[in-house]
Amino acid sequence: MKTLILTLLALNLTSSYADEGMWLMNDFPSSKVEKRYGTKIDQKWLDHARLSSVRLAQGCSGSFISPQGLIMTNHHCAHECIEQLSTSGKDFVAQGFQAKTLEDEVKCPELEINQLVKITDVTETMNRATQGLTGKPYSDALKATTAKTEKECATNSETFRCDVVTLFNGGKYNLYEYKRYQDVRLVFAPEFAAAFFGGDPDNFNFPRYDIDLSLIRVYENGAPLKSENYFKWSKSGAKPGEPTFVTGHPGRTARLLTMAQLETRRDLTLMSVIALYSELRGVLTEFSNRGAEQKRIANDHLFGIENSLKAIKGKFQALSDKTFFESKRRDENVLIQKIKSNPKWNKEYGSAWSEIEKAEKEYRNIFTALTWLENNHDFDTKLFGIAKNLVRAAAEFEKPNEQRLKEYTESKIPELKQSLLSTAPIYDELEIAMLTFYFTKFRENLKADHPLVKKIFAKKSPRDLAKSLVNDTELKKIDVREALFKGGLKAIRESKDPFIQFALSMDADSRAIRKKYEDEIESVTKKNAEKIAKARFLALGTDTYPDATFTLRISYGSVEGYKENGKKINPVTTLAGAFERHTGYEPFALPASWLENKSKLNLSTPFNFATSNDIIGGNSGSPVVNSAGEIVGLVFDGNIQSLGGDYGFDPTVNRAVAVHSEGMLEALDKIYGAKRIVNEIK
Amino acid sequence: MKTLILTLLALNLTSSYADEGMWLMNDFPSSKVEKRYGTKIDQKWLDHARLSSVRLAQGCSGSFISPQGLIMTNHHCAHECIEQLSTSGKDFVAQGFQAKTLEDEVKCPELEINQLVKITDVTETMNRATQGLTGKPYSDALKATTAKTEKECATNSETFRCDVVTLFNGGKYNLYEYKRYQDVRLVFAPEFAAAFFGGDPDNFNFPRYDIDLSLIRVYENGAPLKSENYFKWSKSGAKPGEPTFVTGHPGRTARLLTMAQLETRRDLTLMSVIALYSELRGVLTEFSNRGAEQKRIANDHLFGIENSLKAIKGKFQALSDKTFFESKRRDENVLIQKIKSNPKWNKEYGSAWSEIEKAEKEYRNIFTALTWLENNHDFDTKLFGIAKNLVRAAAEFEKPNEQRLKEYTESKIPELKQSLLSTAPIYDELEIAMLTFYFTKFRENLKADHPLVKKIFAKKSPRDLAKSLVNDTELKKIDVREALFKGGLKAIRESKDPFIQFALSMDADSRAIRKKYEDEIESVTKKNAEKIAKARFLALGTDTYPDATFTLRISYGSVEGYKENGKKINPVTTLAGAFERHTGYEPFALPASWLENKSKLNLSTPFNFATSNDIIGGNSGSPVVNSAGEIVGLVFDGNIQSLGGDYGFDPTVNRAVAVHSEGMLEALDKIYGAKRIVNEIK
Repeated sequence: MKTLILTLLALNLTSSYADEGMWLMNDFPSSKVEKRYGTKIDQKWLDHARLSSVRLAQGCSGSFISPQGLIMTNHHCAHECIEQLSTSGKDFVAQGFQAKTLEDEVKCPELEINQLVKITDVTETMNRATQGLTGKPYSDALKATTAKTEKECATNSETFRCDVVTLFNGGKYNLYEYKRYQDVRLVFAPEFAAAFFGGDPDNFNFPRYDIDLSLIRVYENGAPLKSENYFKWSKSGAKPGEPTFVTGHPGRTARLLTMAQLETRRDLTLMSVIALYSELRGVLTEFSNRGAEQKRIANDHLFGIENSLKAIKGKFQALSDKTFFESKRRDENVLIQKIKSNPKWNKEYGSAWSEIEKAEKEYRNIFTALTWLENNHDFDTKLFGIAKNLVRAAAEFEKPNEQRLKEYTESKIPELKQSLLSTAPIYDELEIAMLTFYFTKFRENLKADHPLVKKIFAKKSPRDLAKSLVNDTELKKIDVREALFKGGLKAIRESKDPFIQFALSMDADSRAIRKKYEDEIESVTKKNAEKIAKARFLALGTDTYPDATFTLRISYGSVEGYKENGKKINPVTTLAGAFERHTGYEPFALPASWLENKSKLNLSTPFNFATSNDIIGGNSGSPVVNSAGEIVGLVFDGNIQSLGGDYGFDPTVNRAVAVHSEGMLEALDKIYGAKRIVNEIK
Repeated sequence: MKTLILTLLALNLTSSYADEGMWLMNDFPSSKVEKRYGTKIDQKWLDHARLSSVRLAQGCSGSFISPQGLIMTNHHCAHECIEQLSTSGKDFVAQGFQAKTLEDEVKCPELEINQLVKITDVTETMNRATQGLTGKPYSDALKATTAKTEKECATNSETFRCDVVTLFNGGKYNLYEYKRYQDVRLVFAPEFAAAFFGGDPDNFNFPRYDIDLSLIRVYENGAPLKSENYFKWSKSGAKPGEPTFVTGHPGRTARLLTMAQLETRRDLTLMSVIALYSELRGVLTEFSNRGAEQKRIANDHLFGIENSLKAIKGKFQALSDKTFFESKRRDENVLIQKIKSNPKWNKEYGSAWSEIEKAEKEYRNIFTALTWLENNHDFDTKLFGIAKNLVRAAAEFEKPNEQRLKEYTESKIPELKQSLLSTAPIYDELEIAMLTFYFTKFRENLKADHPLVKKIFAKKSPRDLAKSLVNDTELKKIDVREALFKGGLKAIRESKDPFIQFALSMDADSRAIRKKYEDEIESVTKKNAEKIAKARFLALGTDTYPDATFTLRISYGSVEGYKENGKKINPVTTLAGAFERHTGYEPFALPASWLENKSKLNLSTPFNFATSNDIIGGNSGSPVVNSAGEIVGLVFDGNIQSLGGDYGFDPTVNRAVAVHSEGMLEALDKIYGAKRIVNEIK
């Protein structure tokens, strides 16, 4: 606690000197960076970096590192794939994976790679469509124009993907055009014990000693993609003080939210998720204790929950810091006063904050219903997700593209199909455990007297219901899913599958609360956030960056340590440190490959390092490149102080944590004997 | 959320008309109550009520209801005993318990009953001892005088217990003298399914349909106690609108805390407990899913955790309500201004608030260390608790009484012996699960680099350590514990028992952080809270009640409904309602005894009811009596709106929830055929 509180105080005092910002690829503060670091970053550099960077659609970043479509990302970004390719007999998570030849590379059932090939400003189109509208009509127009614009852009949605991206909470709209790749194969992954050495106790901490690396390859028409743009590997890696650039896809930040919105998080939503995930963590931990196979199949879920939980606790701590919170309030008041002092601005934008505050009150009232009837709808299970998507898709596909729920518009169909027809294994025991948990929470949160709860649990306990759904459904068979998907509404209505019927029984209530939220709350929030964004441009200028939106950004910084509890933290660790931290007991147990090959290693090789780049969840797998645009590292974490980054960046202690390029090469070469890969990279 | 937020707004506007207050038995607002309800409550009435009321030392309330020492309390207050008396073959929790004859009544291994026989004001003694002192000397003097006063009072601590009670956070000190009874036997308990019908989903809700009743009997010299003071059973029970009085032992309230202290709760401590208990809840839930026996042995723990968790979430919600929180701040500012406006008062008391604020800052800094090194020290397990107590007692008993840690002073020895030499079963599997959980949290919270963490986990994972401690210890044998207890420091030092050695290895760090807390933080907080209490008496008068301290209080109110989401809630339910709510699936499954005997019941008999009495955790098991001092009910819960009662009482919706006297009799008679008991009560 102490550190976080102390450091956040410094926030607003120093931000003008900070390496702050998740900048747009087409709006980078080159002159500011040149002044600070003496490095010229021109648009050609940026365009090359853009095309060399990729997004893992399921929630991570990565980069091309060879002309044959080889992509570097984190182990934890490919973790789900590695688990899906494993069986009880062959556990690639525990043992690692290495394709000795091209033919040994195996397809990941659910990975999708996006490469950003074009950015178009569509602010005017969007503004024109919504001009003069508020409430539901505003929201409908926004959705329809988004769907239309995306469809017109991606004429072939199998290979292209187009997203209308809302920047500055609506201050700008850009159309992002991506190449879409769904044939992605696993090339290399170290053992989980080495990738996530230190486990949850060390997560979000520094110093670190992790090789959180996986290599995957994009295929096109059955052959490795010829990737013209890729980052070359640096000959020496990054040294302390050297400028570093991180391209990647930060997921979400909330630095531009109003105080009313931040208060809702602090007072309601964060606590609710902390309680939920903590309990689920307990369930999954004890589930894993049942045996080795249960541990294997729950590993990815448990890792994800623990990682999210730690991040969310960090957010809560940041918002619970009184001094920090009040500094945000002062900033907001400054902006409001500027707007109020100009009658024209005031007339146009003055009411935006109070409108959002009113909408937030309404949001608090429906929060529980919205969460449990709609937002947690797939209950973190494969089967419920499939059932819901089949039921919803059938109904949505009957509608014109512009009127569909946004996840069923034409441009979203390839991802939908990928997940519905995935060959990934489904584990009954885990599905039952997850459903039992979520059903119980469903009842707890909506209360026993809610009509839907009464209906669902009138004849079965949560656990009995979970068991019968999982045991009796046919949705585990891909051909059954395919038939239902192709069969449309008629097939769904005629289906006797208990899971389809269950999903149908929830759908009306689920849609109703979502509609209420979108029409009455989200529409107000979006409209007024757009107003605030415009007001901010007018009052404070446009020399800034938008909140993160899981779209490509670039941040600048340098290899830099920091102080914690008065102690100086060195920015670079070495391979030797990993062996010093090894106790032989999970999660501080290096795998056999490391222990056996220790003598071959140059133990003074840099292993992990910290930089002052401004990153957040979603940046996992981002390349760290030097001024020459060469790979010097691989972002895999932030330190504990970076967790407040959701709401503000503190340059004195907020650090990105990366695997060093030299450490990766040394391990690939000497520990894993991955000559083929090393040669390809070099 | 909605309800809680709305209702708390009303708080300060109406409190002067409220049935608010957990009043002292020797300072009851009789004239106010007479004015409001036309009921004369004189000191004789109060003295009889005091002697008829009892405390369950482990954390509940109860009352004598016959001249043969029969005590009425909640099922959930005797739950642990019922579980301890059960075996895998004979599960009294699931099946219920009834002693058909006196000889069938079975001793509870860990129950202690306290009857408050005398109250003496020792404010002057305490004030004299601490006069002019601050910091550690103040705190030492307070502790020494407490230990001395208690020892002098309880010359025979086996049968008498004396506690110095701090009232108004130090505004007054009273010496409470109790008769102490440790021979307490189980007489009757219904099935858990009936006692806790509706389970966690219905907990803290109303309407309710629970027979949360157990009957126990105090024995003296091997025979039933002749209890001269007891509550008679009402002939008709309470009707809507009728005045009701609740005597009992509310555990803790925080209505007099300063804003700095409340902020620490809102920002830090409550969330920390919510996360911990949520995760433990998940662990225990999944542990219970392993099988029937695991479910049985974890039941009491899980129930306790779920109950606490719901209560703590309610507290967090109350403190997160901005309007409520700011109203508390206004109240504090009014008091501070009054003190500041009087130079003499200001000199004496003016700095108290800022002194506490400074201490709170320091408290936040050591919160994690204090929690994990000392406060969670027994990790909710039997074995670690025993090991710790043996290790500590041996060291403390070497010191003079006045210098001991407070839980090892002479007056506390009987409880200590009771728990150390308890015959209650210890379940290895549950102990291992709990220790694994807490060891993991211990490492997570103190971090992997903490020297003690490094030392403890250098050679074992949390789970391996838990297993080896539990499997290898001899502390499961009562004679081993007794020998170590009697053997003192020498025996402890020579012990090879791994759990004793483990407890020893933690003791130095554990004592150090506690010492830091007591000497540098608690001493400041206590001293200044005492000042604020005196300032409050001067500025606002003494016509008030102190925060709850798990000592006997009386509250007044009436049988009264309330409004929730605009809907009127009737204050009384009937037996018919239980059958209507029955689905046959846990936790909405009435036991066979109810279903089989349904036809014998008068279904319109009142079952549960709500009253406006001001209660809180610790009041569980409290009798509800009418103006004539007759039993009309048994408090077992509060509604969800009562959870904010920790910080303030809202008369419009804060309700105590009780089992109706008529419902209890009807069930005892017609369902359980408990003629012997019914005759004794009647």
